[in-house]
Amino acid sequence: MNNLLSILPLQPQQILQILDVAKFYYYHPKQYFDILKGKLLVNFFFENSTRTRMSFELSAKKMGAEVINLDISLSSLKKGETITDTAKTISAMGPDFVAIRHNSSGILQILQKHISASLISAGDGTNEHPSQALLDAFTILEHKKTLYGLKVAICGDVLHSRVARSNIFLLSKFGCEIQINTPPTLLPFGYEQWLKNYNVKICQKLSTAIADADVIMMLRLQQERMESCYIASFDEYFQLYGLDNHKIQLAPKAIILHPGPINRQVEIDTNLAYDVDKSCILNQVKAGVAVRMAILECLSA
Amino acid sequence: MNNLLSILPLQPQQILQILDVAKFYYYHPKQYFDILKGKLLVNFFFENSTRTRMSFELSAKKMGAEVINLDISLSSLKKGETITDTAKTISAMGPDFVAIRHNSSGILQILQKHISASLISAGDGTNEHPSQALLDAFTILEHKKTLYGLKVAICGDVLHSRVARSNIFLLSKFGCEIQINTPPTLLPFGYEQWLKNYNVKICQKLSTAIADADVIMMLRLQQERMESCYIASFDEYFQLYGLDNHKIQLAPKAIILHPGPINRQVEIDTNLAYDVDKSCILNQVKAGVAVRMAILECLSA
Amino acid sequence: MNNLLSILPLQPQQILQILDVAKFYYYHPKQYFDILKGKLLVNFFFENSTRTRMSFELSAKKMGAEVINLDISLSSLKKGETITDTAKTISAMGPDFVAIRHNSSGILQILQKHISASLISAGDGTNEHPSQALLDAFTILEHKKTLYGLKVAICGDVLHSRVARSNIFLLSKFGCEIQINTPPTLLPFGYEQWLKNYNVKICQKLSTAIADADVIMMLRLQQERMESCYIASFDEYFQLYGLDNHKIQLAPKAIILHPGPINRQVEIDTNLAYDVDKSCILNQVKAGVAVRMAILECLSA
Repeated sequence: MNNLLSILPLQPQQILQILDVAKFYYYHPKQYFDILKGKLLVNFFFENSTRTRMSFELSAKKMGAEVINLDISLSSLKKGETITDTAKTISAMGPDFVAIRHNSSGILQILQKHISASLISAGDGTNEHPSQALLDAFTILEHKKTLYGLKVAICGDVLHSRVARSNIFLLSKFGCEIQINTPPTLLPFGYEQWLKNYNVKICQKLSTAIADADVIMMLRLQQERMESCYIASFDEYFQLYGLDNHKIQLAPKAIILHPGPINRQVEIDTNLAYDVDKSCILNQVKAGVAVRMAILECLSA
Repeated sequence: MNNLLSILPLQPQQILQILDVAKFYYYHPKQYFDILKGKLLVNFFFENSTRTRMSFELSAKKMGAEVINLDISLSSLKKGETITDTAKTISAMGPDFVAIRHNSSGILQILQKHISASLISAGDGTNEHPSQALLDAFTILEHKKTLYGLKVAICGDVLHSRVARSNIFLLSKFGCEIQINTPPTLLPFGYEQWLKNYNVKICQKLSTAIADADVIMMLRLQQERMESCYIASFDEYFQLYGLDNHKIQLAPKAIILHPGPINRQVEIDTNLAYDVDKSCILNQVKAGVAVRMAILECLSA
Repeated sequence: MNNLLSILPLQPQQILQILDVAKFYYYHPKQYFDILKGKLLVNFFFENSTRTRMSFELSAKKMGAEVINLDISLSSLKKGETITDTAKTISAMGPDFVAIRHNSSGILQILQKHISASLISAGDGTNEHPSQALLDAFTILEHKKTLYGLKVAICGDVLHSRVARSNIFLLSKFGCEIQINTPPTLLPFGYEQWLKNYNVKICQKLSTAIADADVIMMLRLQQERMESCYIASFDEYFQLYGLDNHKIQLAPKAIILHPGPINRQVEIDTNLAYDVDKSCILNQVKAGVAVRMAILECLSA
């Protein structure tokens, strides 16, 4: 593994190996290591992020690596430099890892040609967010003891969700059955491919999608990516597409995931989001650090 | 001591202990330590700051800890996440210390419930700025050899000053006599409680407040917090409420403190601010690093 | 050497010594050192920068030093503090090195009086950018095996270029012959001094300037510093003053330098910029890290 730009090229065994490495770090959360001492991670973020940028920064530091954050609002891109020239420049300084978040889907495949370091997608447009799918898989594995053959509901703003896409790719490798619930306006172009290639179904009602699910993934309503009106109102959205204490009774053994940040009372009832018996939202955050430590380790092996 | 949100709950002995630990670091300014190796400080700042953010960052690094800065203008709060959800997320990543600066008074008491790390106030609204009061106390102790029974003048924009409030709480624990001079428009709501509970007097004239003082604390005129007009003009303010070479003669043995940043020729004459015989303004900055090292050490003990 | 504010006071032997130290680091790009362990670099940047800020940060970290970045848009300067007061404050915290980039020419000579650390110019206005001239010299020396008596063409926006100025000063110390080509509107005030004091000629045509040159330095068209109209159009500029595959045939043995970021097809043809046989643009970036490591080492000796 030289880069992590997409879930697609990963073999199930590779995924399980990353999660197995992550497990050690997850259960030793207070320990720092020297494994990546003398290595450098550059965080090259073109979009707002608290959790992902901090998670990558912390992961690298816990492995003993140095981190440089490039905040794009301060950068030379304001001086009219092309992003490929900036990428070449960063690469010339000799980093070992470059984590990139950018709002253009697929831009990492282009930048890959200009960067000799290991490139890690921290989310590109509405394309993929592979480290999120891996940390979601870690969280599922911890609670369900397997990734194989699970029944997973993915609910909400699928259109703008790179998280949904990476998760569909990952879970399908393990034979999971995926039921999607979303307003018709938030179903992405080309979703028919999913129906054809994977065990994916579209459910008109949330209740159908989540019934007897092992895992319910609630997606964030990404208003910041919406150029026009996709939903009637937050209230109606919550009523039809949000998860609450009543609806969750249809899936008594399900764990709830959400990539964060949460829109309270839009995708999910606030109390349910922090119900430690059902929701794994904060476990996901903790898993994020461990999984990214494992990703860095596997990339440098 | 698990958190440092306010000066109020600290016992005089605790304060003196922090200052005693700080003394060692103050007199070994070039030394780095491994005491907090493997620990993490998150600087979570919602307001502009050069000195306080840098001081916390440097203190942690000199103790061997890792530091992650979360600049809120880049953060998920822009995506509509509540601050308590951001706090829960940060906490889930397992930091040891979180230093927070926020413009809402009292918000740290709320966030405390959502963060399992040691929480340190780096200033909340017009409420408190406890690490500033501790570094002021350190500076006073170094120069006056005691904190007990001093005569302290606090002058200027008391209304917007969390520094004044924390200092009144701290100095009152040592029986200091505090004389306040401020334009009537800049006296805070509820100041009568100070008159009742502490040895605090309001002086109409600067000359009365500073006469024979051991310590003169000049406060910053916080124009960035002023929504309307509190003063007639900077010139008049300086004439009536500013400290200059003439007025300082009324307090021949006084040391001058100012939390910075200074408004030159508004609160204080520029030359007087950097008169090394009278002004301790740069000593305060240096003390800030040592005192924050001591705070981190005491919080992790 | 206590500071690096300008190329002017450096002796040729000092320059060669810095480059000699840098050579070791350039050829050991993956190694980290402990030479500056327990030292602190503060990056105090008032202007956008990707490469220079990252280069200084990485250099310091590779030498084992700690780095604190002060992003001025977050700083107390917004609260009305003078830059000298901010400088005094930073100095009071005891950094070993302060690297400053600022848009005012000559401001570092003023700040020098207020900072007790080693001060390094990371570019001041249109005045100087000494570390860039040193890394350019390193790149030239690597390719031409000497700095003495070379024929160097400096082409483009000389008016706004601190890079040009520092390079003229440096190369003149080694008896280089410098030919400048620039639109008349982009020739700086006072350029006649260069003609008088150094072996500098102004050439009306790019072809004259670069004919048989050993080194061609293309300058960035600094549109962000332009308050009015200096050029007719980018197309015309590229035709008259840009470097392309055709014109470069006049200088068959020349290496091409550019400080970056590049305006593609304005100063230089994109393919030529990344032609590894002719262009040293990415070598300059790599050299930047090694040269700055050497600068820090020499300043702390």
